[in-house]
Order: sequence, then C-alpha cells, then structure tokens
Amino acid sequence: MNVLKTGIIGFGVVGSGSVAGLIENHNEITRRSGHQIIIQKITTRNLAKLSEKFSKDQIAKNWQEVVEDPEIEVIVELVGGETVAKEIILTAIANGKHIVTANKALIAKYGNEIFAKAAEKKVMVAYEAAVAGGIPIIKALRETLSGNQILEVKGIINGTCNYILSAMYQHNQSFEQALNAAQKLGYAEADPTFDIKGVDAQHKLAILGGLAFGIPIQLDKVYLQGISKLEKIDIEYADKLGYRIKLLAIARRAKTETHSSVELRVHPTLIPKRQMLANVEGVMNAVEVTGDRVGKLLFYGAGAGANPTGSAIISDLVDIARDVNSNYENRVPYLAFLDKHLSSEPVLAIDEVVSSFYIRLQTIDQAGVLAQITTIFAESNISIDSVLQYEREDQSKNSVNLILLTHEAREGNLAKAIDKIESLPSVIGKSITIRREH
Amino acid sequence: MNVLKTGIIGFGVVGSGSVAGLIENHNEITRRSGHQIIIQKITTRNLAKLSEKFSKDQIAKNWQEVVEDPEIEVIVELVGGETVAKEIILTAIANGKHIVTANKALIAKYGNEIFAKAAEKKVMVAYEAAVAGGIPIIKALRETLSGNQILEVKGIINGTCNYILSAMYQHNQSFEQALNAAQKLGYAEADPTFDIKGVDAQHKLAILGGLAFGIPIQLDKVYLQGISKLEKIDIEYADKLGYRIKLLAIARRAKTETHSSVELRVHPTLIPKRQMLANVEGVMNAVEVTGDRVGKLLFYGAGAGANPTGSAIISDLVDIARDVNSNYENRVPYLAFLDKHLSSEPVLAIDEVVSSFYIRLQTIDQAGVLAQITTIFAESNISIDSVLQYEREDQSKNSVNLILLTHEAREGNLAKAIDKIESLPSVIGKSITIRREH
Repeated sequence: MNVLKTGIIGFGVVGSGSVAGLIENHNEITRRSGHQIIIQKITTRNLAKLSEKFSKDQIAKNWQEVVEDPEIEVIVELVGGETVAKEIILTAIANGKHIVTANKALIAKYGNEIFAKAAEKKVMVAYEAAVAGGIPIIKALRETLSGNQILEVKGIINGTCNYILSAMYQHNQSFEQALNAAQKLGYAEADPTFDIKGVDAQHKLAILGGLAFGIPIQLDKVYLQGISKLEKIDIEYADKLGYRIKLLAIARRAKTETHSSVELRVHPTLIPKRQMLANVEGVMNAVEVTGDRVGKLLFYGAGAGANPTGSAIISDLVDIARDVNSNYENRVPYLAFLDKHLSSEPVLAIDEVVSSFYIRLQTIDQAGVLAQITTIFAESNISIDSVLQYEREDQSKNSVNLILLTHEAREGNLAKAIDKIESLPSVIGKSITIRREH
Repeated sequence: MNVLKTGIIGFGVVGSGSVAGLIENHNEITRRSGHQIIIQKITTRNLAKLSEKFSKDQIAKNWQEVVEDPEIEVIVELVGGETVAKEIILTAIANGKHIVTANKALIAKYGNEIFAKAAEKKVMVAYEAAVAGGIPIIKALRETLSGNQILEVKGIINGTCNYILSAMYQHNQSFEQALNAAQKLGYAEADPTFDIKGVDAQHKLAILGGLAFGIPIQLDKVYLQGISKLEKIDIEYADKLGYRIKLLAIARRAKTETHSSVELRVHPTLIPKRQMLANVEGVMNAVEVTGDRVGKLLFYGAGAGANPTGSAIISDLVDIARDVNSNYENRVPYLAFLDKHLSSEPVLAIDEVVSSFYIRLQTIDQAGVLAQITTIFAESNISIDSVLQYEREDQSKNSVNLILLTHEAREGNLAKAIDKIESLPSVIGKSITIRREH
C-alpha cells in the first residue's frame, strides 16, 4: 500500500472539514486511490483544538516543525491571509514539499512567484479549493478543456453576494435587509466589505483568467464593481424585462480585436432568466465556461463551507498522491499552460470593453424628453434595444423612471453619452448603469 | 518535445470532430500539455473520405493495420457498435495499446471484460466521450470526487428525449409532433427507438452507476422506462403543480437499507421547477452528483455533437499523454475504484425502490369516489401529499381527471394499490403513474 504523508497547517473551517473527510472517508479514499493519506503532523494557532482528534506525535507546536519534517511530502496550507501563509508555502517549497492550498488571496497576489519557485524545485502546487469551493473549476480549466481554446468564463463565485441578490429578488428585500439576513445566517462577515465590494470575486477571477487564457495572474488588471449600491428597484425592473441581476465575474477573449486581448471584470450584470446561471440561488456558486470545441459547460455547486472545500482539498491530495513519482514534464502545469508558453496578451482597459447596458434615468414627465435622450445616444453611435417608462411611486415629483436597454457599445462611448444626458435639464440626478449579458 | 502517436479508427461524426480539434487546436494543445499529439494512422470504412485531409502514409487500409502499427501508443476507437469495435479494442489491448473510445454501448455491455484485459496488459482505457458528450462527468466521478462517498447521480443524459420533452412543454406539442420536429432538426434518428425507449440513457447510467459506487457495470440491472407513452396532458398538470417532466437516469444509494444496496433506473420523472435540472432545455445534458462531503454538484453542457464529443476525446488523449510513462498503480482506476476494491452491493429490484409518485386517474364525477380511492391508499400505507381534480375537456363523458401526489412509498406497494383502484367501478380505464423527485 502506498502512503502519502501530509502536514496540515491551519484548523479553521476548511482545515476541520478536510480532516473530517480524510478520517471519515479513509476507506473510500483508499479504495479509489490505492494510497493511504496520512496526517503526519498538524498544527494551528490554538493547539488545544487539536488534542481531542490527534495524538501527541501528530500535533506540531508550530508551522516550522511541520514544513521541516523530512517524512512529509505535502504541506496543506489552510492558514489563510498573505503573510505567514506565504512564508509557510515558500519555505515548504524550498524544502521540496508539494503544496495544497485554499488561499485565493495568496494565489491571486503571489501565484506567479509561488509557481516560479515551485517550478525550480519541481514540486506541485494544487489550489482547487481556492476558487468556488467544491466545484472542480480549476481541474476543468487545467485538464478537461485541454482540447479547447477558452473563449469565455462567467461565474457566480461569491456566495455572500449571490445570497443577498437572491434575497432581494425572492423576498423583495432591500440591500441592507438582505445583508442583515446573510449576516444572521453566517453567510456574511460582521464586516462584509471584502465580499460585497467584490474583492473576493476579483481574487478568484484573476486566477480563472490566468488558467483560461494562459496568461500570468494579474489581479491589478481585474475591473471591479461591487453590489453595495444596487437598488431593489433595478432588480424589479430587470425582472419585468426578463432578467436577473447577479454579480458576475467575467473573463473573455475581447470581441473588439480578434483574440488579441482579454477582458477581466467583476460587476453586477443582467442575465436573461432562461439561462442556467440566472437560476443559481442563495449561496450556491456556478461557473460557465465556453470552449471553442465543447461549447458552453456549466459547473454548479457549493462555493464554500467546511465539507465542500474539504472535498476539493482531498481530491488535490489524491491527485498529488498519484503524481509524486511522475516526471515533472508530464504533470499538469500550474496555470494550465506550460510556463514557457504563457502568453502576454494584454488585459483590455474597461473603457475599451464592448458590452450592452441597462440604464435607468429619472426624468421630468414631459413631451420631448425621450427624443433628447435618444438623440444623444444616436450621436454617440449607441443603438437602443428597448425603452420602457414607469411611473414613480412618489407621484408628487412629476417625474418618471426611464429604462433603456442598449445594444453593444464601447464603455468609453457610453460613459460620454451618459455624461451629456445627465446634464440635460429634463434629467434629474444621476443615472444607474448596469451591464447586460445575452 | 514529447510526442504521442495515435491511431484513429472511424471517421464519422465523432471522428471528424476529434480530428478537427486535434488539427485546429494543435498549438493550444501543445501549449497546455507539452505533448504533440500526432495522427500516425487513420482508417474508416470509406477511405475516400480521408484522402483530402490526410497524407497517404497516414491512411491505413483497415483497422488491423492501425492496431498492428508498432509506433502507435493509443488507439482511438470511434467505429461504434459492438462487434468490430470490440474486436478492435481487444486486439489493440492485446498489442499493448492504450484505448480511447466514445462507445457507450460497448462499455456498458463489455466494460468489465475490457477493463480486465486492459489491467492484464497495464494499459489505460479512457471513455469520457461515452457519457454526456462534452460534459466531464466521467472525470468528475473518477477524480474530482475522490474524497466523497457518492450518494446519488441524477442525469438528463439523452438529448433526443430532452428535446422532445422540452418541445412538448415549451411549444405545447404532442409527443408525435415533438418527435417529428426532433427528426427534422437531426436530433432524432429516422428510427428513434433506441433513444425514446431510454436504451441509450440505460447504457450511460450503467456506466455511471459503476463509477459512482465502485460496483461492476450491470446493464441488465438498470430499470428502464422510456418517454414514448408520455401524454401532453401530464406535462400540463405537472406544470400546474410546479414540476417539469424529464427523462432522468438515477443511480442512488438505496434509502431503504442504509448503504447496503443501490438503485439504477431510467424513467420519466417529475422535478420541481426551481431545481437546476428542471431548467435543462432542448438537447442539452446535465448530471447532478451528490457526494457526502461536497453536497450537490451539477455539470451541464452539450451531450452530443462532433465538437463537444471531440473535446472529450482530446482531453482523454492529453491525460494519457501525461501518463504513458507512469506506474500502473498510480493511474486512475478504470471504474474509479481499484479492481480489487470493487464492491458487490446488489442493485435493488424496482419493486423494492422507494419513491414518491404522480398519479392521474380518470373517474366518474360523483360523490364518494375520492373517499374510495384514498381509503385504498391508506390501507396500503401510502400517504397522499396533495389531490387535484380537473374537469376533462370532453365534458360529455361525465368524468374528471384526478391527480394525486403521494409521499414516498415502496413501488411494489403502490402497484398493488393501483391495481385495486383501477378495479373500482368509478375508475375509468388505466391510470398513469410517473415517479417524482423532490
């Protein structure tokens, strides 16, 4: 029987889920893999948490003891954060250990550096758990789609945001109400900024973009707009028009110049209700990948949680167990493409991105206003798909809500047209613009 | 640069899609895998089809020439059928070649034998393309879920049936109308029996069941009921009750006796509309897998077609390219579990399966009928979830349609109760029973 000795650092949510899976499904894992996956050492900040489940021999007093253990072949980094975690991983790599991690922030920020160090030492770095929890999207991009050019990746990859947007739609809640509910259920942190501003999704998309197109990970190039300013009324209008609003993370071969640049962006997006992605509710995640050969594939599942994320950690461990004796050249590359074949395709600036839009304007209710607005769009070469006018609830103001859906237009063009429209005397206040997918 | 020399046998839909992918995406595949995948030899029944795309050196006059070529490491069998294809695969294995095939009927019927022969020669047999085309469900069950006990697999895995059922629902067509439309669009064969009777889905489920539970493939144990007798009216009633009707292939750890047996069954099924599976339309396929750790995962995509299926063939080839020099013991087992660890869990007879049901009865419109019927159910220990009564369109008959949804009951019990109910003088003709999922 082959044995893979692991060292686990961190025993929070993901750590405890991973350990529970390794212990409870030990037989099933061995039946499948022919390997016994052993927890040789484990450590965490509060060692008392470990004393019930592990023997004295297994408990290490600090992470250094784990990464220095000569019998350990794989380090499972589940500490999170970007300082100690980075030191752990780089030290482990220097010691010739393979790495499994769920640390999306670390891979998004330092993945290129970590992979370069790992390549020098010919060790594996597996990070399925870093994006979309139990959904095997990393494996899909690294292995399943190896016969394809990836055209597009579109994902709902932040469960907190998706819970809030689902609740606003299903229970007719305001953003604040939905956020409060998410916090009560443990789906949002006490300080929810990281999720609702879209930073978490930005990290994950930076990783997915690298994997999809064979470009280095470029977190700073991912355009970001969160959901905290979304209003209930736009969710209602979108509904009437046949759309749902979701926080989408999009990586796409740019349409403007054929395959010479890519788009990386995270923002609220209208999606037609009939699409599978529009039907992803609550904290669930889903990623749709379009390959030139396979067409559209969708992967749906739990994007977080101890057990789903632990499932991803274990499958990475089993993959590593199967490959510890393989030639480095035959292993799946860190970012799906061989290092020497990574491409330098640029990421398109958001101004250059072509998209279609949902626009809500508040205007004075009088003849000629619509003509003024549509004239400005026409002069900017932006064509209108449909226009709808709704009375406002507070009739006193003698104003209406005007909803426009545009055809595809360059974002820079649209921004200029919106500026002009907002300066019309008949237009009240600021407009709301939300991108739309077909 | 590593080279993998392949021999392709068969140049129909899947063959041409695979070849087109290998040629058009040659650079992308090499960028990803570090291997050049070469078509060393190719053959098909009508050699004239090959002369445009291939050099004389590449074209083999028959399959024997391909499987005997000492330079070829992998045989891609895309002939289909169960006679020549079986001979090709067994001969190739005897010659020490690895196998890639899209042949679901062959794997469903002779997979156990083929895997046993392959194990003797320590060669790989890859068959991602055999189930659900471009959807990587085989890889999910063999690799992604290695940390899980699989509890359930539920799939829409026949595009023809799903097209027909979608058309009946969306366009209000009869079964015959929808079938004709499918035939015109090329989604159904001139003789559609194989699809609409569910035989194709049965083949695929036999394979999925083996992979999910680590049991030998047992085609003859898969319960089968096709869609050809479905009536439009049941799709309409299901709709009113919040359900869609889909042909589902279900592999499940049996509920009656904890984990000591499994269910394998293909039949029309009511699914709540809010579920992702209910929203799979047209020829698209989807498979939902429930693991004890990961929870529910759904995989959605094209279940057939030259390019999606070709995509699966290519990813199998890349996986093999990476593993040709690996130890046999470290490779992913044929049926996800090591041969020596396959289990003998029995497949539950359909009579023993516990399910809930949709039942439509035509009854005389008079007082007391419902009481008679519900009394029979109560005596059989079958509890009723809801009852609805609809007037029939042909009022002349003085009869009504009675729709009952039951809670979970043993199929054998239900059948006996239905027999009694059908013999009531107030019940007209035969009832319609369709299984229901929650």
